[in-house]
Order: sequence, then structure tokens, then C-alpha cells
Amino acid sequence: MKIHPFWDPYPVVQTELGRAAELIDDTIKIPDPEVQKAIREMLTESGGKMLRPAFCLLFAHYGREPLNEKIYALAASLEILHNATLIHDDIVDESALRRGSPTIKNRFGNRIAVYAGDYLFAACFKLLAKYASTLKSVEMNTDSMEKILIGEIGQNEERFRLHQTIGDYLKNIQGKTAELFALSCFLGAYENDAPETIGKSARKIGENIGMAFQIVDDLLDYQETAAQIGKPVLEDVRQGVYSLPLLYALDENPAALQPLLQKKEAITENEAAQIARIISTTTANERARTLAKKYTDLALAEIRKLPQNQTTAILLDILPKILTRNY
Amino acid sequence: MKIHPFWDPYPVVQTELGRAAELIDDTIKIPDPEVQKAIREMLTESGGKMLRPAFCLLFAHYGREPLNEKIYALAASLEILHNATLIHDDIVDESALRRGSPTIKNRFGNRIAVYAGDYLFAACFKLLAKYASTLKSVEMNTDSMEKILIGEIGQNEERFRLHQTIGDYLKNIQGKTAELFALSCFLGAYENDAPETIGKSARKIGENIGMAFQIVDDLLDYQETAAQIGKPVLEDVRQGVYSLPLLYALDENPAALQPLLQKKEAITENEAAQIARIISTTTANERARTLAKKYTDLALAEIRKLPQNQTTAILLDILPKILTRNY
Repeated sequence: MKIHPFWDPYPVVQTELGRAAELIDDTIKIPDPEVQKAIREMLTESGGKMLRPAFCLLFAHYGREPLNEKIYALAASLEILHNATLIHDDIVDESALRRGSPTIKNRFGNRIAVYAGDYLFAACFKLLAKYASTLKSVEMNTDSMEKILIGEIGQNEERFRLHQTIGDYLKNIQGKTAELFALSCFLGAYENDAPETIGKSARKIGENIGMAFQIVDDLLDYQETAAQIGKPVLEDVRQGVYSLPLLYALDENPAALQPLLQKKEAITENEAAQIARIISTTTANERARTLAKKYTDLALAEIRKLPQNQTTAILLDILPKILTRNY
Repeated sequence: MKIHPFWDPYPVVQTELGRAAELIDDTIKIPDPEVQKAIREMLTESGGKMLRPAFCLLFAHYGREPLNEKIYALAASLEILHNATLIHDDIVDESALRRGSPTIKNRFGNRIAVYAGDYLFAACFKLLAKYASTLKSVEMNTDSMEKILIGEIGQNEERFRLHQTIGDYLKNIQGKTAELFALSCFLGAYENDAPETIGKSARKIGENIGMAFQIVDDLLDYQETAAQIGKPVLEDVRQGVYSLPLLYALDENPAALQPLLQKKEAITENEAAQIARIISTTTANERARTLAKKYTDLALAEIRKLPQNQTTAILLDILPKILTRNY
């Protein structure tokens, strides 16, 4: 198992993520060796940054105790939960690639992808039930999972709707992405008995990081080539999911964009690329970057209120790196 | 919400199932009203017998306390878990009908079916976390869910394999069906503080009921018309899942069956019907019925060891009804 080089400058986080990754590998036991291998690769070897467990571990440092098995298990459970949703997302979006590797759906078909995702949900809650101090943590975790899925189901109604508002979009990514970041930060602090005020800050910080993170992700979808981000571009447009840059651009130049979008699923690769070009002639990307920066700044301001220590220094250091990816 | 007429002769169970069904309806809150309606219909109105919650409630009567909110919540969580797996099974098997109604996959497509199943998993564990007395119950529940899914993933390796043994089949249905029946019976007793020996009996009884139940289900798949059981027949054969009657028949008359089975997914409806006819010329159905009866008898013998009371009388009464469906 290899931890992403992103964490090279932070050997403490690297070691702790290593412990969480070991627990992930120990937890996932699937009788089909090929499926087992594919899932382990996806979770601990395909080069994800493991951001959610990392935030959980970092915020646990504000707690009373040195980090222990329980915290590593919580961190592991968050990464498992995240990957369960990714495996299922790839069924729904019919994605062939993720982080440059074939998706589980692509390699093994729907049958294995459905059950593998379900298995990871079970494994996540099993770890949680085994290690959490109280039923409260499990409840918070299931609450988050419920919110994420209500977000995904809700998003379905919005698909291909030209008149989504920025508010709809923000609500959607709040559920889809920010909720799990908020939970990750909060659980680390809460389960290691950090003061209540820090738990509250942790949640706010996680939420703002998650919002910024998803906006940046959506910006990249319009700006990068498939090779650079390891997945096909403009997937969202073809799925009828209109993210922030497109919504801003629709506002500025509806005449150019609406006829293309009205083709819905039938849109060609060329037409999708044309949409990206039209967006780049507007101020949409700029405006999306500004909003991402606003959320990043909110997170940074809240981090600066935390006790000044090594962990706070790491948080201040990594945030700009995570939230200004390649643009 | 209407409780299945199967329970008409047992007004106590009927009332208690009604409480569990109310909790199910209260728990499932999906923003898309059409999806919400479809899921509620599937869970509490489409005429399922709610066997798993019923067994949970029945075994809770061996406990120290009168039934309370916690037990109704556990019963509800078991039915929610069961339906989550059904919704995902229907994606994998591409089934159009279940209990005579269109499946969620059929009505709303993969996107909604994947996320709706996930949502029900979350809702199940949320209910459990909120109401269970200890993390132990949640752990046992996730354990069972893990076993079910390992069974489903393991089954994939067996698909279209002509030389499965009866042992492979029994192991498979143990995970796929018997585990959840065992958990349902056990949790009712355990969470209502029944004596430990009754908890152990409950698990054994549930396991044997589950085995018999699945064998009967597999028998019906070869014997009934689509109209009678509310789903297309011979689905399993087309999916390469060879159940007990076919395995017995393969043993008796491989020359007739193997050429048909070697067509794998390409098998036609006529050829599948031919397989059912060949099976009926062997002793396979008879042998499968005998094995189902063996498991039923094991369950009945164990039930007879329970304290003689109203609940035990109900169990003795319903078992033959559940396990001798239309054959």
C-alpha cells in the first residue's frame, strides 16, 4: 500500500494514514480474489489522497488522547464509505475510468459493482459499530449517509433542467460532498474527546472545505483533458448534471448554450467540447473560482481560530494545495 | 398501509406489524415524491408478508418486557434492510417485476434504484443506531449484511458452472437468505432480554426456516407461471444461478440438460421452459421438497422446545403455511 505523495511533507499524517490503510485492507475480505484485489487497489493503491480519513486524523489531534486504534478505525470507515459511493456512482454514470484506472463496473459489470458497493457500506458500519464509543457516532454517520443519498436522489429531479439556480447547485453539493467532509472533521474531534467548541469548528471547516473542493472539481471537469484528471471530461453535461461554471455561463450567454443543452443525452462529444469553449468565453470559470476561494477563505479563517500548534500549521499549509488544483 | 392477509388469524402479530410498518413509513423520507411513493408501496403496501419483522416481533415475546418502541424499530430496520437488497437484486438481475408490480429499476432506471437501495441501507442502520441498546446489535446486523453480500459476490463465481455441488448451493442460500432470518429471530429475543438459551434457539430456528424458505422459493421458480408468483419464471437459469431442483436433475439426466445450459445467457424462453419440463421428469423436485421438509422439521423440533405459550403456538401454526407454498 502506498500513501499519496501529497502527504510526503507531513510524515506524521503519512504514518497515521498508513495505519488507517492497513485497517482498510484487513477489513475488506471478499471471497472472489480478483474482486478483492480490484477493491483493495481502488481503496489503498490507486493514488487517492485519502482526504476524508486525513481530516479525521488531523482533527483527532485536538482531542485529549494520543491517537489510538479507534481513531484509525473511524478514519478507515470514512474512506470505505466514500469508496462505496464512488463504486455506485460509476454504475449510475456508466463511467469507464476513475483516477486513470478502469472502474469496478467497467471491469466486472453491474452485478459485482452493486454488491461490492453494498459490501463496503456494510464494512464501514461494521468498523464503526466495533470501534465507536457510542451509538451516537454510528447515528451521525448514518445521518450523513442519508443526507448524501437524499442529495443524489434529489439531484435526479434537476437533471437536464435549464433553470436551476445557483442555490439549487450549492444545496446539492452540500449534500453530495460537503456533508462527508464535515463529518470526517467532526468525528475525529468528537471521538477523541476534543472540546465541544473545536468539534463545532471542525464541522464548519469540513463543510467549507467540501464546498470549495466540489466547486474546484466541477471547474476541472470543464478545463482538463481526460489524461490530466484521469477520467473522461464533461461527464456531468452528458448526464444532465449542470454544475457551477455552466450555470454561470447559462446566465451570461443562454442563446449560445441552450440549443446545445436541449439535445440532452443525445449530445455528442464535439458538442460537449463546444460547451466548454463557450463557457471559457464568459466570466463563468472566473466567478466559480471566486466562489471556491470564498469557501476556502471561510475554512482558513475558522482554522486560524484553533489552538496554534503543529496540526493547525499542517491544516493551513495543505488547504491551498487541495483547493487550488491545476487551474 | 395494509398488512398481508396471511396474518389475519393472528391479530396480535397484525397489530405489531402495523406498528413496525408505521415506523418504516415515518423513516423513509425521500424528496422526490414519485420515488417516495414507489418505495413506500414496495415496503408496506405491495403485499409482502413482512416475515423478517414478524419473526423478530414473535421472538421478542420470549423476552422480559412487553414489546416497546425499540423492538418495533428493530423489526422495521430488518424489513428495510431486506428491501434494500431486493431493490439492488432487481438491478443486477434486470428484473421488471416483483410481487406483480414493476421494480424500482424498471420504473425509474438504474440511477434511482442504486441510490434508493443505498438510502434504505442508511435508513436501516440509522434506525438501529437510534434504537438498539448497544453497539453489539449494530455489529451483529452489519455482520449479517456482510455475510449476505459476500454470499452474493461469491455466487457470481459459480454462475453458469455445471459442476456445482449441493454443498455449494446450501452454503450460498445460507448466506443469501438464512442469515437474515436467523438474525431476525435472534435480535427479537436478544434485544428484549430473553434468556440466552432462547436466543440460541431463535437463531437456529431462523436459520432452518430461512433454508427451507429459499429451497421452496427455488422450487417455485421452476413450477409456477409468472402470473402465480408475480415475477418472470426461470430468471435464475438465465442468470446462470443453478438452484437445487436443477442441480438434482443435472445429476440424474446430464445428457438432456447440459446442451441447453451450455447456451448460458443466450438461452431462449422456450429452452428455459424445456429445462423445467426435463426437471419435472426426474425426481429432482421431489428431492428438493424432501430437503425443504427436513429443514422445516428441524425448525419445528426446536420450536417445540420453547416455553409452551401463545407465541410458540403461533410459530407452530404458521411454519407449515410459510413453507408449503403452492406445491
